[in-house]
Amino acid sequence: MTTAISVKERSLLGLKDISRDEIGSILNRAAYWEAQSDKVVPVLKSKFAVNMFFENSTRTRFSFEMAEKRLGAEVMNFAAAASSVEKGESIYDTVRTLESMGIDAGVIRLKPSGVLQELAERVSIPLVNAGDGNNEHPTQALLDLYTMKKSFGELKGLTVSIIGDIKHSRVARSDLWALQKFGAHVQFCAPETMQAPELAQYAPYVSMETALKADVVMMLRVQLERHNAGVFKSSAEYREQYGLTEERAARLSGHTMIMHPAPVNRNVEIDDTVVESPRSMIFNQMANGVPIRMAVMERAMKG
Amino acid sequence: MTTAISVKERSLLGLKDISRDEIGSILNRAAYWEAQSDKVVPVLKSKFAVNMFFENSTRTRFSFEMAEKRLGAEVMNFAAAASSVEKGESIYDTVRTLESMGIDAGVIRLKPSGVLQELAERVSIPLVNAGDGNNEHPTQALLDLYTMKKSFGELKGLTVSIIGDIKHSRVARSDLWALQKFGAHVQFCAPETMQAPELAQYAPYVSMETALKADVVMMLRVQLERHNAGVFKSSAEYREQYGLTEERAARLSGHTMIMHPAPVNRNVEIDDTVVESPRSMIFNQMANGVPIRMAVMERAMKG
Amino acid sequence: MTTAISVKERSLLGLKDISRDEIGSILNRAAYWEAQSDKVVPVLKSKFAVNMFFENSTRTRFSFEMAEKRLGAEVMNFAAAASSVEKGESIYDTVRTLESMGIDAGVIRLKPSGVLQELAERVSIPLVNAGDGNNEHPTQALLDLYTMKKSFGELKGLTVSIIGDIKHSRVARSDLWALQKFGAHVQFCAPETMQAPELAQYAPYVSMETALKADVVMMLRVQLERHNAGVFKSSAEYREQYGLTEERAARLSGHTMIMHPAPVNRNVEIDDTVVESPRSMIFNQMANGVPIRMAVMERAMKG
Repeated sequence: MTTAISVKERSLLGLKDISRDEIGSILNRAAYWEAQSDKVVPVLKSKFAVNMFFENSTRTRFSFEMAEKRLGAEVMNFAAAASSVEKGESIYDTVRTLESMGIDAGVIRLKPSGVLQELAERVSIPLVNAGDGNNEHPTQALLDLYTMKKSFGELKGLTVSIIGDIKHSRVARSDLWALQKFGAHVQFCAPETMQAPELAQYAPYVSMETALKADVVMMLRVQLERHNAGVFKSSAEYREQYGLTEERAARLSGHTMIMHPAPVNRNVEIDDTVVESPRSMIFNQMANGVPIRMAVMERAMKG
Repeated sequence: MTTAISVKERSLLGLKDISRDEIGSILNRAAYWEAQSDKVVPVLKSKFAVNMFFENSTRTRFSFEMAEKRLGAEVMNFAAAASSVEKGESIYDTVRTLESMGIDAGVIRLKPSGVLQELAERVSIPLVNAGDGNNEHPTQALLDLYTMKKSFGELKGLTVSIIGDIKHSRVARSDLWALQKFGAHVQFCAPETMQAPELAQYAPYVSMETALKADVVMMLRVQLERHNAGVFKSSAEYREQYGLTEERAARLSGHTMIMHPAPVNRNVEIDDTVVESPRSMIFNQMANGVPIRMAVMERAMKG
Repeated sequence: MTTAISVKERSLLGLKDISRDEIGSILNRAAYWEAQSDKVVPVLKSKFAVNMFFENSTRTRFSFEMAEKRLGAEVMNFAAAASSVEKGESIYDTVRTLESMGIDAGVIRLKPSGVLQELAERVSIPLVNAGDGNNEHPTQALLDLYTMKKSFGELKGLTVSIIGDIKHSRVARSDLWALQKFGAHVQFCAPETMQAPELAQYAPYVSMETALKADVVMMLRVQLERHNAGVFKSSAEYREQYGLTEERAARLSGHTMIMHPAPVNRNVEIDDTVVESPRSMIFNQMANGVPIRMAVMERAMKG
């Protein structure tokens, strides 16, 4: 039983169910890692991490791989086509196989929501959620908080507007859960078809005008080809109504930070020039992802 | 010429043509590796292994990769779509290319049977067979023997029933060749369309009733969608006639071990609850695959 | 600005615009690396290289990966389907992402010509060109020069015939630019549809008869299925007119070297027996690719 609890404590399935202190200690440890002058500090020497991406993501997989290697871990990568795991092997069987082989932790990205919790209960290695459906993407939210904290000193009292496809966004959910624990004020802005009604009790839906009055404006990726066909005739129409255009960006308060989980649809969610402007923290977010994931993987695998 | 012989001795193309002593020494060395408390023992430091999978297999590739990394080797992976090697590059040219670059050994999985022997004769690096068509899968059989030996102490006199698609199974063949060298009694059980007539001289085909009376019941994966269409109307029908159902598992003798090379079609070859039952050695087989492959790769690459 | 210049000097985008001395110093350093008895010399310990192949190439990627690992670098690989980068992420955004994460250099292969220069100007990490469209493939030409220099002592005065699809060949271009800097005489031989008129001012197009009278006969890969459909009825017809057949190979001067950037279409550009004949340097070229890429990656990433 000790082992089971320990594994549970080492896993990171989401931010909804972990404490503010736990999140705080990950953020602090990330700052420690960011401050290291040596690129590789082998605290995870001889440990094996496997990155299991049942849904492709170059960006997130590389960020984890880099974090793991900077800690000296051995890394194995697995990417399955979204549609089929080879030979119909189930996700559970894949994870059990890797566990049997003796890996020390698994990073996992899954298409479906809500199966990760059950999966974690059936295996005895720590699992780190790299995005599961529209449920949670905890390391993305951690790096978001880390980025905000670096700029603003503390999270308490910040107003954070999350704009775009809330409904399908695991990032919106993980950010919401985490930011609220620290006393930040979260507000959403989305067209009706992209709203998640079940979240309305936690954060208000506001107009674009109101959303732009915030300390942080976080734009979400839209996938117009997948969702919401028929509502917007074109990405130009979406941009006009919900995009952070140059014109809108110019009206932001001087201290407002622009964020995006990336990859950005340039000139849809955010104008190209705004992505590259000094108040865009998008590339900083990517940079911060590495020390955050170092802290998360160290927590999962060390000792 | 010394080199050529040496390379041949380091290669592992199949178990049919190597001696019982050679197999025994690999099994012993695997036990040595399993007993190590350090996960990484860099006896293959600065050596380069390439895993060339011309047919995909997450499970087997990971097992080899883990074995290689636990020995400190540098690992490169190559997976070609089953249908085409990039730009029409032939398998031979790919292996020759890697050889020219200075790799120390290649692990290779091939779709066609019977080309590996010729390939091995044309290159001067050790090759390890990770499955070639329906010919051999020597490391799988080695881990099977290792698993049996760990449970039963010795292989001599064991009765091993191999049940299912014998015809297309390289595992059945490698197990047959190896088990017989150690004096185990192998028997097959398969529907007529899944029998390999050329093997009948080595092992009898028996009824399901008889097959279940054995020390080891090894179930094989069936690919009903690929083979034998028309014979079984459904996987339920296959399960009814040749599956290790809960009911059949309950009738097994107390000491009988259940094995499967995996991945299992749950509730086809073996019922889900039986896969997870204590007498199922399926996950143990996966665990044992790593020290077996460490022994095989060390033999192929060391000093 | 110092940094910008420094990055530019570390990058290797092509051979057209770098000096003979610079090329000479890479060739010399490759000789140093080839002479090392230790396979791994970790001068790039704790440095991160990413191989970004937006167009697949097993051969070239492996050669770079091996070179990077022999220098002790950490290696991450990225292969995007030719047609689409995941989620529509642009090449620029992918490189910027990796840069933000803190990688030390990127090796990049691109389908389109002429975008690499602009890309390199927009990022602040060294980039090494692993082939961009039909523009340049500098490390291939460097290994070609290295191979010639090893055999002939010096490049000055050599006659090098490049035969085949000049029009679509980045190898032909990189070889041309580099060889001319060293005073070698380059001549092309190609059917009209495979000629690059803009190169005629640098090297003459000659008949097959003339082309075979050379110190080096470099055959290029043809892709009859992609290009020039209708001109040659079959690959047999191409072979008859432009292939290095056994008969033609027999007429070569005793000292003439046969080269090919590989992969070879055996019995199209070069007869199978000629590929394997002693005067074929094709596998030597592959072997030489590793020390060349060690020199190039060391130059890009060291200290």
